[in-house]
Amino acid sequence: MAYRDEKLSEEKVFKDPVHRYVHVREQVIWDLIGTSEFQRLRRVKQLGTSYLTFHGAEHSRFNHSLGVYEIVRRIIENFTDRPNWNQEERLLCLCAALLHDLGHGPFSHSFEKVFKLDHEDFTQAILLGDTEVNKVLSKVEKGFPKKVADVINKTYENKLVVSVISSQIDADRMDYLQRDAYFTGVSYGHFDMERILRVMRPMEDQVVVKESGMHAVEDYIMSRYQMYWQVYFHPVTRSAEVILTKILHRAKELYESGYNFELKPTHFFSFFAGEPTLKEYLALDEAVVLYYFQAWMEEEDEVLSDLCHRFVNRRLFKYIEFNPNAQMNEWMELYKLFTKAGLNPDYYLVVDSSSDLPYDFYRPGEEGERLPIHLLQPNGELKELSRLSDIVESISGKKRTDHKLYIPLDRLEEMSSRSKTKKRIMEILFDKE
Amino acid sequence: MAYRDEKLSEEKVFKDPVHRYVHVREQVIWDLIGTSEFQRLRRVKQLGTSYLTFHGAEHSRFNHSLGVYEIVRRIIENFTDRPNWNQEERLLCLCAALLHDLGHGPFSHSFEKVFKLDHEDFTQAILLGDTEVNKVLSKVEKGFPKKVADVINKTYENKLVVSVISSQIDADRMDYLQRDAYFTGVSYGHFDMERILRVMRPMEDQVVVKESGMHAVEDYIMSRYQMYWQVYFHPVTRSAEVILTKILHRAKELYESGYNFELKPTHFFSFFAGEPTLKEYLALDEAVVLYYFQAWMEEEDEVLSDLCHRFVNRRLFKYIEFNPNAQMNEWMELYKLFTKAGLNPDYYLVVDSSSDLPYDFYRPGEEGERLPIHLLQPNGELKELSRLSDIVESISGKKRTDHKLYIPLDRLEEMSSRSKTKKRIMEILFDKE
Amino acid sequence: MAYRDEKLSEEKVFKDPVHRYVHVREQVIWDLIGTSEFQRLRRVKQLGTSYLTFHGAEHSRFNHSLGVYEIVRRIIENFTDRPNWNQEERLLCLCAALLHDLGHGPFSHSFEKVFKLDHEDFTQAILLGDTEVNKVLSKVEKGFPKKVADVINKTYENKLVVSVISSQIDADRMDYLQRDAYFTGVSYGHFDMERILRVMRPMEDQVVVKESGMHAVEDYIMSRYQMYWQVYFHPVTRSAEVILTKILHRAKELYESGYNFELKPTHFFSFFAGEPTLKEYLALDEAVVLYYFQAWMEEEDEVLSDLCHRFVNRRLFKYIEFNPNAQMNEWMELYKLFTKAGLNPDYYLVVDSSSDLPYDFYRPGEEGERLPIHLLQPNGELKELSRLSDIVESISGKKRTDHKLYIPLDRLEEMSSRSKTKKRIMEILFDKE
Amino acid sequence: MAYRDEKLSEEKVFKDPVHRYVHVREQVIWDLIGTSEFQRLRRVKQLGTSYLTFHGAEHSRFNHSLGVYEIVRRIIENFTDRPNWNQEERLLCLCAALLHDLGHGPFSHSFEKVFKLDHEDFTQAILLGDTEVNKVLSKVEKGFPKKVADVINKTYENKLVVSVISSQIDADRMDYLQRDAYFTGVSYGHFDMERILRVMRPMEDQVVVKESGMHAVEDYIMSRYQMYWQVYFHPVTRSAEVILTKILHRAKELYESGYNFELKPTHFFSFFAGEPTLKEYLALDEAVVLYYFQAWMEEEDEVLSDLCHRFVNRRLFKYIEFNPNAQMNEWMELYKLFTKAGLNPDYYLVVDSSSDLPYDFYRPGEEGERLPIHLLQPNGELKELSRLSDIVESISGKKRTDHKLYIPLDRLEEMSSRSKTKKRIMEILFDKE
Repeated sequence: MAYRDEKLSEEKVFKDPVHRYVHVREQVIWDLIGTSEFQRLRRVKQLGTSYLTFHGAEHSRFNHSLGVYEIVRRIIENFTDRPNWNQEERLLCLCAALLHDLGHGPFSHSFEKVFKLDHEDFTQAILLGDTEVNKVLSKVEKGFPKKVADVINKTYENKLVVSVISSQIDADRMDYLQRDAYFTGVSYGHFDMERILRVMRPMEDQVVVKESGMHAVEDYIMSRYQMYWQVYFHPVTRSAEVILTKILHRAKELYESGYNFELKPTHFFSFFAGEPTLKEYLALDEAVVLYYFQAWMEEEDEVLSDLCHRFVNRRLFKYIEFNPNAQMNEWMELYKLFTKAGLNPDYYLVVDSSSDLPYDFYRPGEEGERLPIHLLQPNGELKELSRLSDIVESISGKKRTDHKLYIPLDRLEEMSSRSKTKKRIMEILFDKE
Repeated sequence: MAYRDEKLSEEKVFKDPVHRYVHVREQVIWDLIGTSEFQRLRRVKQLGTSYLTFHGAEHSRFNHSLGVYEIVRRIIENFTDRPNWNQEERLLCLCAALLHDLGHGPFSHSFEKVFKLDHEDFTQAILLGDTEVNKVLSKVEKGFPKKVADVINKTYENKLVVSVISSQIDADRMDYLQRDAYFTGVSYGHFDMERILRVMRPMEDQVVVKESGMHAVEDYIMSRYQMYWQVYFHPVTRSAEVILTKILHRAKELYESGYNFELKPTHFFSFFAGEPTLKEYLALDEAVVLYYFQAWMEEEDEVLSDLCHRFVNRRLFKYIEFNPNAQMNEWMELYKLFTKAGLNPDYYLVVDSSSDLPYDFYRPGEEGERLPIHLLQPNGELKELSRLSDIVESISGKKRTDHKLYIPLDRLEEMSSRSKTKKRIMEILFDKE
Repeated sequence: MAYRDEKLSEEKVFKDPVHRYVHVREQVIWDLIGTSEFQRLRRVKQLGTSYLTFHGAEHSRFNHSLGVYEIVRRIIENFTDRPNWNQEERLLCLCAALLHDLGHGPFSHSFEKVFKLDHEDFTQAILLGDTEVNKVLSKVEKGFPKKVADVINKTYENKLVVSVISSQIDADRMDYLQRDAYFTGVSYGHFDMERILRVMRPMEDQVVVKESGMHAVEDYIMSRYQMYWQVYFHPVTRSAEVILTKILHRAKELYESGYNFELKPTHFFSFFAGEPTLKEYLALDEAVVLYYFQAWMEEEDEVLSDLCHRFVNRRLFKYIEFNPNAQMNEWMELYKLFTKAGLNPDYYLVVDSSSDLPYDFYRPGEEGERLPIHLLQPNGELKELSRLSDIVESISGKKRTDHKLYIPLDRLEEMSSRSKTKKRIMEILFDKE
Repeated sequence: MAYRDEKLSEEKVFKDPVHRYVHVREQVIWDLIGTSEFQRLRRVKQLGTSYLTFHGAEHSRFNHSLGVYEIVRRIIENFTDRPNWNQEERLLCLCAALLHDLGHGPFSHSFEKVFKLDHEDFTQAILLGDTEVNKVLSKVEKGFPKKVADVINKTYENKLVVSVISSQIDADRMDYLQRDAYFTGVSYGHFDMERILRVMRPMEDQVVVKESGMHAVEDYIMSRYQMYWQVYFHPVTRSAEVILTKILHRAKELYESGYNFELKPTHFFSFFAGEPTLKEYLALDEAVVLYYFQAWMEEEDEVLSDLCHRFVNRRLFKYIEFNPNAQMNEWMELYKLFTKAGLNPDYYLVVDSSSDLPYDFYRPGEEGERLPIHLLQPNGELKELSRLSDIVESISGKKRTDHKLYIPLDRLEEMSSRSKTKKRIMEILFDKE
């Protein structure tokens, strides 16, 4: 039997807290899960620094990747025998679903920002390079790794297949909303996925949803909205993110200035240089990063050591609402105050802005645009969701930016000063306590 | 106001997926959670290697410690104003609950076995040594750290307090059963904790349960029974445990024989010598261990390198039922076969036995005896649970040992041999696939 | 001890699927639950005819009333010792919560419409009349029944107390959303009630919610929105409601025209006359109504018999979108067609309109206005929810009316006719199948 | 297309709180659900009088019947293409599953006991008599109603088919355990049904379970054990049952003695005579019974009136442990006391015994023996469950009888007497309060 058609002698299942069971029948899928590149996802947290806000959020991208695979498996089960659906594309979809996050590194968002990397490039590199994953995919058929890469890259010719993996209501999002809600324990993130799957229909170039399922889709959109504001953009998580980013910046800066590290950051050299090889990229998982951060707590450089201490022991910066454009004077006052106190404002006075585009909202570290959701009306016509749903319409496209100033309250407290701004900030922060 | 009575200006809550919210009002508790020794528990998994069997089981001991604290908080809420209960002991109970697992290191079970350590000794050392935790506790009252240590050590004079923290139906067990069930996603581990808490009564020297709650307690005991066999003793988890143990053994052996490591295992030196200091002990968390394992994949020593590869990339040993005492001949046959093939049987032919004592069953890496459960009858008399419950009686005290042989199937396959045992094992394993 | 302060020797609990346990400590509450007027609520379904759409929705108003009581108990638990809260009002709140739905009759909505009754009047009558409930309340204190009646009637002087029982985010709504979601099995209706309860604060004249809880409140509003459209206004439920209404109309009409019933509708006489006494009102529960409907299936009058058949055996009318104002010609065509076929259009050609006012949306059979939700900002100011929440703002005040035509498809099919409208309707209905 | 193969143009689903959705594709199943005999099950509660103990338990047999159908549908989905399974039997199984409880009347257990009826006879009668159900089944194929009847009656020749519907681990039991747990809200009744379904295998003459699923089956057995003692045999439910039985006895006795009823019990005449026709049997649902009970509260006969009052308004008898054989003297004392007080001991002094045979335990009103559970071992051999499972073995076959005395405490209190037994009972009962 051709490798692509090989079935396991008995179906394998993974116990999954979100979908109850993840079912695997194909030898190809089984082999992919067993590759070292896929197993590596166990050492990358799905939600980066969120575990410092929600202690339950310690789950990995391995977890999520299996979940996305399972949802796609169920979507296709419903598509079988429907018009427009080509069962030949099934294995391709399953592989793309399973592997779509393969290129994620540790704390993706910060790493990408500081080192100017893109995890999607690494996903492509892993699929197409000299890897175990590539070997398995190549056994399926010549050119198969490229096909999988194209689907994930949204350049595959069959747009229907692309939209199963990547759209405003794809398996990726349906899994992470539910999974992140489950592990954080928040009460948002629930919607009737079973119903959505039942009303999904394959059209020529995209997956659409029957109009009768509109309310379930609205519910999904609202879940997303709540999860973004309650979990993904949580200011405490962003505080941890700020510190993490500053650690990476500092280490790079020190390295470039010829600083003599106690612990040579060998794993980081190529990242500092901006050009990690695939092997180097894969070697840097979160265990390794945490190892360095712990070692760096003992470094002589005070900034690096202090920031690492803060990250490892969760002594985060506090935050207040702050818009530097509108509050130029206050900003200057603080800047001077920090400088005078010998505290480098570049590292200890950080403004972070988050924006969201409800319905178009993106998650930090995620690709920008996706296909909008189309509803299939009884008369066979398609209409974009926000044209039929008041709720979705009302939250679509509105951009909301939110500026926050992150500072180490403990250090601010120590500064003896009559600064009004300092006084004001202290009051706000103590009120919040 | 005395530090021991200080309240936070506003109650703080942690969102917890198992108990919904963990509530903190005391400044002392808040400060303890913020210590570096407590934050370190985020880097130690609650279920060790179980995440290689149940991908959801990635939660940390930090998670669990907060949960135990919360349950004790609720137990005491019910005890307030009841006879026998001294509200003065409240803070002591809360601290002991929060800190009872403080001494756990990475993959406790294996580390303790190989390096002859006891995490309970380290819990004591952290409480009583030069640590942030000790500083916070000392502020409460002179001698307070010792009191907390005594409660955890079960030597505190007020046995009622001890039994809240540690008995056959204590907060520790109630939390881990529910939490481990939640994160693994298994359907066991559920019982009506709210009801059990409601029927708990403080007696002079122990917590007892009103007889009317017997069925809820039976359900709890059955949950435990199922969790032990379905989760804690799962043979795949034990396979990972076997490999982990062998890695540690090998590294120690190499070190002692003067082997020249590519990556010096500096964090391990004192462990190999059997006498880590407190600081050294605390420095070795699971991120650090995984860092070494990944580095050691590149070591020249084939055994060490191979075993690390297996652990990191989840290429575990396969298992079959095997009792070496009863199957001496087969054992010898395999031993020779492996030796001949150049595969060190000490590392690749491993028999692992698990035992359980239902109702007395203990979890790997856990202290032995605990107080039995007493039911409070309407007439005021106490009766031990198994004397009133048929079900519990029937599973009490029965010792069940289960022997399994762990081997690398891939290597066995390669060995050309006419060994009957090999043939038999291969058949069993392929049947299982 | 005064009756109002009497406690049960041991707390009683009811196992409740929604709130886990309902706790009762007061003798007064216990006695109220035992009255025949309260027990009667077991024979009135919470959701009227919804069980014909959602088979799980068979729960009674007894169920819901206990739930509202429990939520109010928890709200007050959080209020104790807060400014503005007068613990003297506690028992009053608990009684009002428990008894607020006491006047509901069978299938309230239809009965009220057809017989021009108001269940709120009957709630008042039960509280103040010669009833077991009144006896229990009178034992508390002279004038206590009146106080309870005033709270439920929203005329009680302490507006804070009124708003606990009745506002846009009161215990009534929080219970029914969760309970109706639980029993129907829909995935809407979930929100984080525990968090909402924690951020509720008593102010001088109303309960408000801390601004930090805004997202939880948004989630609650969205739940409500979804429940209204998915459950409460479900067109199949409305179809059953239409038939029920027509049965009552027909019976009244026949009675007034001197028709000779096989089974004399003695229980209905005073309803037909529009003036049931309290005793007569209480005697007519849903068991009695169903008894009559089954008996009337055998009546000679074809309309009554047929409609009863349809209701009892769930042979409902089908529906299509239809606006008689805009479709006057079609309406006339159908009217003639039905008349010609000997099918009384007054009973078999029914247009039903539902309206909703999101955020102000009311549930069929429920009182109109309620206090809006105010958020308490950190600076102590109050702001109305929709001024702070985009989502709520966007769905507030929009009136949406939805017209549907209900007809017996089976009868329409039989009519031989070339009517275009008939043809069009048949097509729509068969498409929907 | 033959009627038996007709599919609905679009799959229909019922929202079900236990199984999420019930899926219907066959026209036959859809038509059966629409029959008046099946719709009648909405007016018969699944758990009889249990709603007086657990207020959530108001669900009907309609509910449960759909659930059993859905489980069987899923079982067969797994069986398709497996050896031993004949897909021709699919529709037969689905029909038998849906209709297996069709003959249940109101409060089955009591009615059957008092009037010497058997609901199974009526199931057969409905399937084979002049009914809508029979008409639908007959359209499938001549003799099909008889086949369905035989499967339900366990006399069908293909024993594999019988065991899907009726065995120790059949769809019936799996549904009611989960459903009754859901609606009562108890925390028992959960087990991993999805896993059990996955390890079920069709053998020649029965359904067996793969040995690897043994722990899931143990969990199911334990759920059953807990549900029996916590829910099905709950003494308060039995108290309501006792009163119900006595009402029926009294009405029959009065009727036979020529008593002149205010409200003629026409619906009951044939029951009193012991020979209701099918039509009469079907006409008597729980709405009708409750109608009579309410009417009878006004009867002149004090016993009938009082008992009806007690049932309708939930003024139940209290209970104590009591074994009349061992406590003959106490029994006699009470008997005299009641007689002297003019309270007929036949109606007010009732001993009720419940027995259970764990693993063989039956539910009140349910058929006796069912096929034991066989596990399929890797070597292909079958072993009965209790031979492999310690837990099941330990609770198998043990008969436990439990005697309780039910009395009206309010009346006992009024009796002036120096009876020691009275004094003892009063003490016990007040202690319990």
